Formats: sequence, structure tokens, C-alpha cells
Amino acid sequence: MRIRVINPNTTESMTALIAASARAVAGPGTVVEAVTSAMGPASIESHYDEALAVPGILAALHDADGYVLACFGDPGLDAAREVAAGPVVGLAEAAMHAATMVGRGFSVVTTLSRTKGRAHDLAGRYVAAGACRGVHACDIPVLDLESDPAARKEVVALARHALERDESDVIVLGCAGMADFASAMSAELGVPVIDGVAAATVLVQSLITLELRTSTRGEYAPPPAKRYSGLLQPFERT
Amino acid sequence: MRIRVINPNTTESMTALIAASARAVAGPGTVVEAVTSAMGPASIESHYDEALAVPGILAALHDADGYVLACFGDPGLDAAREVAAGPVVGLAEAAMHAATMVGRGFSVVTTLSRTKGRAHDLAGRYVAAGACRGVHACDIPVLDLESDPAARKEVVALARHALERDESDVIVLGCAGMADFASAMSAELGVPVIDGVAAATVLVQSLITLELRTSTRGEYAPPPAKRYSGLLQPFERT
Amino acid sequence: MRIRVINPNTTESMTALIAASARAVAGPGTVVEAVTSAMGPASIESHYDEALAVPGILAALHDADGYVLACFGDPGLDAAREVAAGPVVGLAEAAMHAATMVGRGFSVVTTLSRTKGRAHDLAGRYVAAGACRGVHACDIPVLDLESDPAARKEVVALARHALERDESDVIVLGCAGMADFASAMSAELGVPVIDGVAAATVLVQSLITLELRTSTRGEYAPPPAKRYSGLLQPFERT
Amino acid sequence: MRIRVINPNTTESMTALIAASARAVAGPGTVVEAVTSAMGPASIESHYDEALAVPGILAALHDADGYVLACFGDPGLDAAREVAAGPVVGLAEAAMHAATMVGRGFSVVTTLSRTKGRAHDLAGRYVAAGACRGVHACDIPVLDLESDPAARKEVVALARHALERDESDVIVLGCAGMADFASAMSAELGVPVIDGVAAATVLVQSLITLELRTSTRGEYAPPPAKRYSGLLQPFERT
Amino acid sequence: MRIRVINPNTTESMTALIAASARAVAGPGTVVEAVTSAMGPASIESHYDEALAVPGILAALHDADGYVLACFGDPGLDAAREVAAGPVVGLAEAAMHAATMVGRGFSVVTTLSRTKGRAHDLAGRYVAAGACRGVHACDIPVLDLESDPAARKEVVALARHALERDESDVIVLGCAGMADFASAMSAELGVPVIDGVAAATVLVQSLITLELRTSTRGEYAPPPAKRYSGLLQPFERT
Amino acid sequence: MRIRVINPNTTESMTALIAASARAVAGPGTVVEAVTSAMGPASIESHYDEALAVPGILAALHDADGYVLACFGDPGLDAAREVAAGPVVGLAEAAMHAATMVGRGFSVVTTLSRTKGRAHDLAGRYVAAGACRGVHACDIPVLDLESDPAARKEVVALARHALERDESDVIVLGCAGMADFASAMSAELGVPVIDGVAAATVLVQSLITLELRTSTRGEYAPPPAKRYSGLLQPFERT
Repeated sequence: MRIRVINPNTTESMTALIAASARAVAGPGTVVEAVTSAMGPASIESHYDEALAVPGILAALHDADGYVLACFGDPGLDAAREVAAGPVVGLAEAAMHAATMVGRGFSVVTTLSRTKGRAHDLAGRYVAAGACRGVHACDIPVLDLESDPAARKEVVALARHALERDESDVIVLGCAGMADFASAMSAELGVPVIDGVAAATVLVQSLITLELRTSTRGEYAPPPAKRYSGLLQPFERT
Repeated sequence: MRIRVINPNTTESMTALIAASARAVAGPGTVVEAVTSAMGPASIESHYDEALAVPGILAALHDADGYVLACFGDPGLDAAREVAAGPVVGLAEAAMHAATMVGRGFSVVTTLSRTKGRAHDLAGRYVAAGACRGVHACDIPVLDLESDPAARKEVVALARHALERDESDVIVLGCAGMADFASAMSAELGVPVIDGVAAATVLVQSLITLELRTSTRGEYAPPPAKRYSGLLQPFERT
Repeated sequence: MRIRVINPNTTESMTALIAASARAVAGPGTVVEAVTSAMGPASIESHYDEALAVPGILAALHDADGYVLACFGDPGLDAAREVAAGPVVGLAEAAMHAATMVGRGFSVVTTLSRTKGRAHDLAGRYVAAGACRGVHACDIPVLDLESDPAARKEVVALARHALERDESDVIVLGCAGMADFASAMSAELGVPVIDGVAAATVLVQSLITLELRTSTRGEYAPPPAKRYSGLLQPFERT
Repeated sequence: MRIRVINPNTTESMTALIAASARAVAGPGTVVEAVTSAMGPASIESHYDEALAVPGILAALHDADGYVLACFGDPGLDAAREVAAGPVVGLAEAAMHAATMVGRGFSVVTTLSRTKGRAHDLAGRYVAAGACRGVHACDIPVLDLESDPAARKEVVALARHALERDESDVIVLGCAGMADFASAMSAELGVPVIDGVAAATVLVQSLITLELRTSTRGEYAPPPAKRYSGLLQPFERT
Repeated sequence: MRIRVINPNTTESMTALIAASARAVAGPGTVVEAVTSAMGPASIESHYDEALAVPGILAALHDADGYVLACFGDPGLDAAREVAAGPVVGLAEAAMHAATMVGRGFSVVTTLSRTKGRAHDLAGRYVAAGACRGVHACDIPVLDLESDPAARKEVVALARHALERDESDVIVLGCAGMADFASAMSAELGVPVIDGVAAATVLVQSLITLELRTSTRGEYAPPPAKRYSGLLQPFERT
Repeated sequence: MRIRVINPNTTESMTALIAASARAVAGPGTVVEAVTSAMGPASIESHYDEALAVPGILAALHDADGYVLACFGDPGLDAAREVAAGPVVGLAEAAMHAATMVGRGFSVVTTLSRTKGRAHDLAGRYVAAGACRGVHACDIPVLDLESDPAARKEVVALARHALERDESDVIVLGCAGMADFASAMSAELGVPVIDGVAAATVLVQSLITLELRTSTRGEYAPPPAKRYSGLLQPFERT
């Protein structure tokens, strides 16, 4: 089977990181293709960025059996489900579902404080009330996670604080840029630490194995064809 | 004061309808400017359409003291709040808040069945659990509401059914294209019927009068500047 | 149009304060009449006070196009809606609705700690779960807010603490006696600060403009006529 | 011990009915005193009636070890708890708690449709979400329950319908005037049928036995003394 | 009437403690019989213990008019209701219901931290959201509560902390082994302190007095007869 | 890797069915071992059965990298997580998580009406409010599903009804005995139909691949050692 992992920002180095994380867990026989969005923001750190990452995602939903949206804000997930031919899984979605299966309550550690609200909203959408016990931000910009050698250390410290404060037992990494932190952090903290990229990869692989794809009954049926104009005319579907 | 009412689809005749509804309730001294989105879908009837209506909205948020997003799905509301200089109010948001102040429980009557989920999601975001007692669809496409002479009649019948079935006491019109139905429907049904365009206009006017604008503390602070590329390069902010 | 702002306690100086706050935001052509309750407690600081403020409110619901209940506990709101000929808006109701349109989560700052539960209950009734992120009390009695020169300063300090602790971005003033604090507090704190008196005035004005009044279908229909006796015989309706 | 059962309306025949129901279940050594409110409405069938029943209740909270508020709307319960020297239990409160201990989900059958919202509100306050599966009205006025020989039959039919429709397994009688229906209805329907008067009597008796009374820490502490004026001056506390 | 109080662990000294607490509040004419489980764990401090306490409970549900499950985790309550001939009440259930009738929000103080999640789950099942404001653990093993002279003191200190931190006004004791702490703790703390053993005893007595027993309509009907095998063959019902 | 699928009832033919469903989706390199419980009920159709299925499950949690609890009631899931060395996934848990990733709202179709409450409880635990739109029962006993040739047809008809009534877009099969219905039902109904056995198998395989196992921080730490006695003495852990 073929899984397409879409990096919704335009930074190639993040695509490489994401690809490595996804490939590390894909099963034998699963081909992981990681693609970088062709348009929009270099990183996603606001609702504005997130909204403008969606067109690039929608343009990339082809030629695979299933799709991973590799940004923790799960931008455009509903729209993607309407147009993709196979199942689509978001990072927050996958990580949060996995977290509930290995613990009683998780904490999210993320990058900028301003994105905490979005993480809470997503928890409200995906998991039962109370499963997400807190969201914590290190206030390191997304693109500095890789380059800043102190970043991982700060994220570990933040996670340790979150476990105490939230009385949680699992850590969810709230940014695709933290994908390579999970294993070492888990060893250091002694609790499950979940990278959404890996989680989404095995979950979409699971859905494909189960021969499940997005329901076309009702809300997620293919959208009605119509005229598109201006800059976005290329998105017209016929 | 100056209120800009943004029609997020590209259909000029809907902009005219929306403008009339907004102007009918604006106070003396309030200038209502209605604009049509410069890009994207001709009408909004899916998550795909909604996502692709957001760039056009974001491009139109200037030169006013407050903004109305004139589509019942309130597309891009969070992003709009980050970048607009004045308050921004969505149609569903305004209509639902108003509904809770004149009744105990409202029903939404909307166009396509596939949009019911979005209406439920918005109710979950804006009002207390239980305030929205039901969402009902007539399955008339948005752009046929005007042209189809039977449309209003069908919407009235649907609303009547909704009041009985949901034991509700207020009707919320779930599409900007129904803006001119409210008054006659209210007379026929004997209950408050709320048009979101008018409601959003007076609410944003109220916020401006109160000298309230979106908080810049935390989540809605102006987004960090960054590189945008490809088709969406024009959205780069500096 | 004519809006009657009802001070549900019997303290005239608070009525003057409330009247000034309401008049400052009323539109041209709107006449604001502020009245003091003819019976009951001098201030409202307990469930007991609140219950006994309701008869005075019910006696004052006449001769206007819309009504403001100018106490943050919104006493008797349901009963008022049954008998008033025009829309009725409470202070907490108006302030909380407005708060959700200019921020992601608000904190209430109020007078006595013992009233915090009521504020939480009202938030549960008016806004979506999570919108009210905390309620904080300064423990200054209502009638001392005006006379105590240090009061405003303490309320500012409390609000600053609330913003940090609750990770909120908007302040709601939890007492009609704080009506004149809003503007200076907003300047000091750098976030929207909402006075319920002003908010309720523009919201009820908005409802009147929209030609909306309380639904008479079901729960808010005029109450059945019946015999009243004893001290409360004057409240008999025929 | 001494339990005072307060009929918050002014109809003596209802007091007699309530007294009989309470006495039938009181333990040996428990004295039940039933009193009729000295002021206000002859029956409680609206928010207006309910608000105006509260002063009469507050005037009757003396000379006992515990109190039952014998109206299913539990009017003034918070205020009563602030001023009564012993525990106070409402009818809806008692019946709903009892219902959750003998079944998985209950239906309320009540008098007027306009009171259904209040029953839902109380369920939201007392029991976990989902415990109350429906509220159904027979639209027989409160004072006709006794005199109308067909009333009980209609209430039985309504309860039978409720059990089917709500998939519930317990019936809660939603009016003090139905107190004498419980036993026969239970026999006919084959499910527990709960009369709030009896339930509140044994529950308040239980609280007294446990030496529990309303906490005076925080919200339910005795209200601050203050000036009361006008018609309600007699309610001033010193 | 005859109430059977079942200690679901196998420690006789705890049964004696429980029996004393139950007998102290039972009415005249009520016979309290306390029994020790015939199988399973010596104390209940994990989900594992709790699951393995259930068979012993199910074997003890006979020869009484009503049953108390004397462990704060309320193990096997649903199963017990299916097979017992009279009403069955759990400790957490009784204590939490009672707590809501004498205060606005309670804190639970319990033994091991690992059981806090269970207490939260039970609160979610029995009482309205928000009624349980916190769960706190002293981390003293169940069987040390009696023998350790410092235990009560530590529990008092924990409760004092809980009242401050949770802004609660009632304490619920989260372990049957704390049954004899309630009265002295209440005197020291100045708030109601609720022992679930006593609470469950008077509540099941109340249900019996009301002639209420578990509904046999639907979920709690006697379970279908079937073959049981292996170690648990004795549990086969015919 | 090695996955142990535990049939918690004692019926061997159901184990065979379950094994086939699990093996059909397990990845290359995954060994699925299906075991039948050594004690307890022949099928699980009540809370009583479910409680008495738990000991058999707890006895079977060894010699694998991960475990599937192959009963839709997910009996003993918390206890199993405390003692198993690898991750443990329940059928309802897996099916409900999967359902939310391929649709907007699912309906459960199950066997006996009396188990509907349990399905609702589990939905409340695993997924966000509103994700489970209904639970429907065919009232065919578990062990008749296989032998009754009409069973699958009735389940299909029930599912069709559920999709209409609940406005859902995914079907969750609410019994391990329906494991072989999924594929044909999906073809007939045109929506995703989810068999929990298959879903749990791929999900536990995913967790193992991610090197995630149940957190031992807090609630799911190994239970304290203690004395067990009577029939259940063999469950003593040291």
C-alpha cells in the first residue's frame, strides 16, 4: 500500500524529518511518500498560517491509498476527507487516540502558547472530555526546534512539569517538528511519549488494512461541483 | 463608523442581498460596505468550499471599524480575528447569540443536509449545550434560494416542522441567502426568526460602540511574520 | 426606541451610575430610562438578596421597548421574559456573549467570593463550556465599590492575576457597581474589559432593532392568570 | 426530629395531600409538620409563579430540624439553604437522586408543557448528564389533578409513552399534586414511580440522621445583613 | 427491615468498623447485618483488586431487603443491581448524592493516588458536572488507616488543603476505612464531612421505605441464564 | 510480534470466529494467538456476565506483546492494563476510535437491548460527545448469531434503520460474534462497517510498532501485592 504524508508547510527540511519518522514505523509492503506543500506558509504558528496551509494540502491529496496531514493542528481535515480517495488522518487526531489507549490522561507539549487553544479544540473533537489534561507551550518557534540544540532539553523539562501539574501519564508531542524527540524523551521520562507523525502513519495504515475509507454518506460526500474564480480558480472541481 | 460585510463567495447577487439586509438594521451614522470575495467558490456548500473561501475573506479585512463574515459557516473566523484591526463577527455566531436572548431553544433551518454537521459544531462553540435543539435542511442549493419561487415556502414548512420536532421557540436561518426571509417567516410562524446578516451587523456595531476589539493577548495576537510561497505568496505578511 | 434599565436593588446612587453607563453607549434616538427597584434589598450579595430582588424587577417591566436587568446575577430573567412586552437582557448574559466575540476565554472579576458559584452557573447557561475560564472575587462589598478609592485598584490587580492564572484574554466585570471601571481598566491591562451595563444596553437595542422579542411559543408565553394572596397579592395578573 | 414540609403555593388542599404523602414514609420519632405558604400564587405553573413563591418559602424556614420544599420546581432552594438552620431538600432534587439509585435512566411526567424546560434545568443541576432521558407533559393544570377523575389515567398513559420513547426504566412524578399517584402507577406500569414529596421527606430525614446540615463555608453562609425596603421590608435580616 | 452491608474485601476488622458506622445511623426497626466477602483481596487498592472483589459481592446478595456495597469504588454495582432482590447502594454513590444536598461542591479525600481516577469516574456517573471539585490522596494504604495513629491527622490536613484548593464546601471520605473519622473531622474543619457507609445505610433504608427497588425494565432485568464453567462455575444461575 | 486475542467467554466456536477475523488483518510477521477464557460465562449478555468474565481475562494476560479483549463490553480493561506487560485494546474502544476517523458520527448495532447502556457508557469513555449517535439492538442472543441464518439479514436491516434515524455515516458492530458480517454489510449499505476484532488487532499492532505500552505512572502501575483468599486465591500476586 501507498501512504502519502503531506507536510502542509513549505519547509523541505521538515518534510525530511517527517518522512523519517513515518518510514520508521511503516509495515513491510507499505510505501511512504512524503511531500512538501507547494504553496503557503513556511511554518504553521497561527490560525492565519493554518487557514492558508489548507489549499496546499488539498492540492496534494492524490496518488495514494491513504493520507497523513503532518501538522499537529490538523488543518483542513474535514475538507480533505471530502476530496481524498482514501482515508485521511491528522497528527493530533492520531496521537490523541493512541494516547487514550496507553494511559488515563495525557498532556500535550507544544511550541507557541498561541496554539494552545487549537490543541484544546482538537482534543474536544477527538477524545472524551477529561482525556486531555493540559496543553503546555515551550514558546520555541517551530523552525527553531531542529536548529536549537537546547530545544529538546526544554521540551523534556516542560513535559516533566506537565506530568506533575496535570497528573497525567502520557505525553503527546504537539508539533511535527518534534517527531524525533519521542523515543529519547520516553526513556528519560519513563512514560509513553507519542509522536503524531508515527502514530498517524500506523493508524492510516490500519484503516487501509481494514479496507475502511471515509464514508461518502452525508457530510463527507464529494463536494458539489461549482465555479471557482480568481487566484483559486485552479481548485475548481468538475 | 464603517462596517464591512464580506460575502465570502464570489456571487455578486448574493452580495446585494446581504448588503440590503445589513443596511436595513444599521444605525444612523453607520456606513455598511458590502464586498464580494475576489477569489474562490461561487457558493459555499461543503468543507472544501469553506476552506477555499477563507483566503478571499482574509484578503478583504481592511478599511473598516468592524467586519461581518457573511456565510453561516463562519469560515476562517479565528484567522480573521488575528489579522483584522476591528472586531469580526460571523453569521452563525451572531444569530445563535441573539437566539438565546429571545427564547429557550432554537432550531436552525439550512440548505444542504451535508452542512448540518458544521452548524452543530458552531453551536457547540458559541452557545451552551442544549440551546441548539436541532438543525434541519431543505436540500435546496444556496444559489437556488433566490431564483426558486417555491424556496421560501419550503423553508417555512421546514421551520414549522422543526419547531414541533425540536420543541424549540426560535428559528435561526442557516444561510446568508435566506436573509430576506426572516420578517415574513416570523409573521407566518409566530416566533422570532433570525437572519444572521442583520444580527451580525447590529452585533458588530454594538462591539464597536463598546470600543471592544479582538483581544491581542495570546491566541489572537497578530500572527508571526514569515515567508509565504507559491500561489499564496501574496498572503505573506511582513 | 425606549430602553428601561432596572436597578434591582434600592440604592439610588447605583442607579445613577448604571444610567450613565447605559446612556454613554445608547444610539441616537434611543431613550434610556433608569429606574430603581421599589422594594427589596439595598444591594445583592447572596441568593437570598437575589431572590428578594425579583419582585421589584417584575413590578418594573413596563413602558419600554426593551429592558436591562442591571445586576450581574441576572435575577428573575426567566420570569421577566414571561411578562415583559419587549426583550429582556441580563448583565451577565450580555457581558458574556460580548466577551466570546472578542476573545477566546474570559475571566470574571466580581465582588464577594460567595457569589462566584452564581457566576459559574450563569456562564454554564449562556456560553459554551470552557469560554468562562475563571471567576475571581475581590471581597469588597458592592456598596463600597464607589466609596472606597482603593477599590478600582484592587479590581485591576485581581484582573491582572486572573488573566495570568486563567490564561484568559478578556475581563468581564462581575458587578453593575463596576460599570465605570471598564475603560480605564482596559487601557491599563491591554485587553478588552466588559461592563455588563453597557453591553446589555447595546444588545437589547440590537434586539429591538432586529424586531426580535421574547418568543411566546412555549416556556415564555404569558403565565396563566391565577389568584395571588397575602403580601404578594399585588402581583396577581388577570 | 421535626421536619417541616413547605407547600410553596397557597392552596390548602394541596398541603393536605403533601402532608399525607410525607407522613406515610416518615420514620418513628419523626414529626412532620406541613405548612402552606402565607403569600403568593395559588399554584406554580410559570417562572413568574415560581419567583413569587420564593418569599413565602423563605418566611417559613423556621422551627424544624430540616425542610422540604414541596414544589417540583425547587423554587428558591439556594436562598433557602443560606437562611435555614437545618438541611433543605427540594422535590425534584430528591426524586431525581432516588431515581438514579433504582434505574439507569428516568423520565419525568409533569403538568404543563411550559414547565418542561425547568425540569431539564434541574436535571442538569442534580444528576449526571443522560440520567434524565425525557420530560413529558400532560397539560393538565396543577389544581385540576385532584379534582379531575381522569387525570391519573392520563398521567399513566403519558408515563407508558415516556418509558417507550425514552427507553427509560423509572418514572419521576413532576408535580407535588401527583403525590398520591405513585403507588398505583408503579403497580400498573411495573417500574419504580417516584413521588418527590415522599422522596424528599426520607432524604431530609436521612441528612438529619447523618447530622449533616448545609455547609456554611462560602456560598451558603448566612447572607450579609442589610437594609430591605418597600413591600419586602419584613424580609430584612439583622 | 433488614439491610445487608457487604464488605467486599476479606478483612474482618474492616467489617467491624463498617458495621459500627452503619448501625449508628440505622433507624429503629432496621436490622443491619454486616458481612465479609468470602473470597478475593484483603483490601481494594487497584482496578485489579476491584475487579476481583466483584465475585465475592455477587455471592453475598441475598437474605435482605436492601444492600450496601461498602467500598468507595462501588465495585460491581451494575451487576449487583441485576441480581439483588432489593435496592443496592454504593458508598461513593451515597456520599456524593448526600454531598450535593448540603453544599455546592465537594472534595473527595481518599487513600492511594492511583484510585483518584476511579473517584472521578464515579463522580461523572453519579452527580452533575462540577459537583466534584477535586479528589485528593493521602497515600496511606487502606489497611494502615486503622493501625496508624497519625492517619486521621494526615487526612484532616489533606481535607483542609482540599477545601482551599478546590474552593469546596463539603468533604467526602473516599474509603470505607475512614468511616469513623467523619464526626471529629467535621468538628475540626467546620464543614460537613460525609462517611459513605453511614450515607449508604440511610439511603438504602430510604429506598426500602419508599418501596423502591431496582427497575427490572431493560438493563437491570435479571440476567439470562447460561452455562458457567471452570473456577466460576458456582456462579451459574438457572 | 505476538498478539494474544482473548475471547472472554468460554465458547470455543466464537474463539475460532474471532481468530479468523484477527488473522485476516494482522501484518506479516505478526503472530495472532486466540485463546478461550478458562472460566466464567458461555456468552456475555449482562453486567453479571461481564463482571464474571473478568477473572478469566486477567488469567490470560501473558506471553504476548499485546492483547485484544474480544468482547464489545471491554470487560476489565482497566484491570487488564494494570497487569499486562504490553498494551491492551478493547473491541468497543478500537471500533469507536476507528469509526471517528472515517466518518462524522457512527451508530452501534448490537445484540440484546439490555446491553445498550453499556455501549453508551463506553462511547462516553472513548470518544467525544456526539460521535456515537445511537445504539440499536436486534435482540438476537450472542450465541444465535452464528447459527441463525437470518441473523445477518436482521442486523443489516437494523443498521439501515440506524443510519437513517441517527443521521450517521458509519456502522460499528457491537458484538464479537458479528465479526464476519463487516465486509458484506459494508458492500450492502455503502458505508464503512467496523468489526471491533479486526480493528483492535490492527490498533494493538500499531501500538506495539510505536513501542507504546500502558503507562506505569499512576493509575495503571502494577497493583500492590496482597493476600487473596477463598475461591480467588489463585489470583494473588506477589
